[in-house]
Amino acid sequence: MTNKNHKDLPGKTIERLSQYRRLLYNILQQNKHNVYSHELAALMNLTPVQVRRDLMLIGHSGSQSKGYNVKGLITLIGRIIDSETGQKVAIAGLGNLGRAIMSYFSGKREKLSIVAGFDNDTQKTERIIAGIPCYHINKIQEVIAKENISIVILTVAPEAAHEVARLFLDAGVKGILNYTSVPLTLPDNIHLEEYDIVTSLEKLAFLVKE
Amino acid sequence: MTNKNHKDLPGKTIERLSQYRRLLYNILQQNKHNVYSHELAALMNLTPVQVRRDLMLIGHSGSQSKGYNVKGLITLIGRIIDSETGQKVAIAGLGNLGRAIMSYFSGKREKLSIVAGFDNDTQKTERIIAGIPCYHINKIQEVIAKENISIVILTVAPEAAHEVARLFLDAGVKGILNYTSVPLTLPDNIHLEEYDIVTSLEKLAFLVKE
Repeated sequence: MTNKNHKDLPGKTIERLSQYRRLLYNILQQNKHNVYSHELAALMNLTPVQVRRDLMLIGHSGSQSKGYNVKGLITLIGRIIDSETGQKVAIAGLGNLGRAIMSYFSGKREKLSIVAGFDNDTQKTERIIAGIPCYHINKIQEVIAKENISIVILTVAPEAAHEVARLFLDAGVKGILNYTSVPLTLPDNIHLEEYDIVTSLEKLAFLVKE
Repeated sequence: MTNKNHKDLPGKTIERLSQYRRLLYNILQQNKHNVYSHELAALMNLTPVQVRRDLMLIGHSGSQSKGYNVKGLITLIGRIIDSETGQKVAIAGLGNLGRAIMSYFSGKREKLSIVAGFDNDTQKTERIIAGIPCYHINKIQEVIAKENISIVILTVAPEAAHEVARLFLDAGVKGILNYTSVPLTLPDNIHLEEYDIVTSLEKLAFLVKE
């Protein structure tokens, strides 16, 4: 199993692997070197069986008596979900949300880094924000090619969403994380993750109301 | 169907109703008063059949020739997902992300409003940010009760997530939208929506890598 291509892992499994790894980093910081499936399960609100199944899918089985080796598991998850050479990300839209994501993500992952910001407001460009150089959107083509950026996080105004997405696709980007409130229709070979704050909040409000 | 309690609608349907309504507001702004299921479907990357099924679930059927009445549909969706009296929301954590959400959401919905911010940093409190009064976390109990706040959006540092969530639950909040990277375990009567930026980005990066 470990030697095969993991491209067929379900999206939800990938999400959980990312979450396990984040927890494992926290556990390591507490100088704990082994962890049981029931501990990971409790931290994630899952059953221990689900945790063991996920980790068996990527070819890992813990020891009954000592649990999983934390460092070993971090390395293994990295081998599955990270790209060997690293991947580069751009942010389009340098408003509050764009800047929040820049500072939040900065330095969090070795193999995945935000290397450029873009905006059409010249007040926000030709400068460095949270350690990241920021450019005018007329430099998209040039910077994406030079830096070999494959992913863009879209935090622009709704009315600009389609046009800006198109500019990044034309420049060769392969994945878009869409934080605008506008659903995007993209070619089949482009990967898309969408998230909208209003929807999450409205869903929660519906569940909460009497 | 319209007279029954809609509490049993699936979460995914609620999410889509919220998204339909957002699109309908945009359509109305363009002075368009009718919309076909295939137009909504194209905007949402759904099939027209899915759109018609969702809207039939809430008791609405369009006319073959003219489609759906935009204003009527906005009103109907509001009747299902909004609370009649309105609901109040607090934000905990007034960093970049908290402030981004405050300004993003401000005035977007009549029946759902962010009415208070909280932080433990006195530099950020006892003042008004994006029109919203911000308080020290030692005022949680008092403000939540006085304002009758039922939902909190959590954007605090990971190490504070559990403790701050607990303070809001003790104050009577019924729903938490968790933007920290820490999964929360909450009592069964509390509603929880979780979202983590790193996970979305890592999942997308996995899909994009060669």
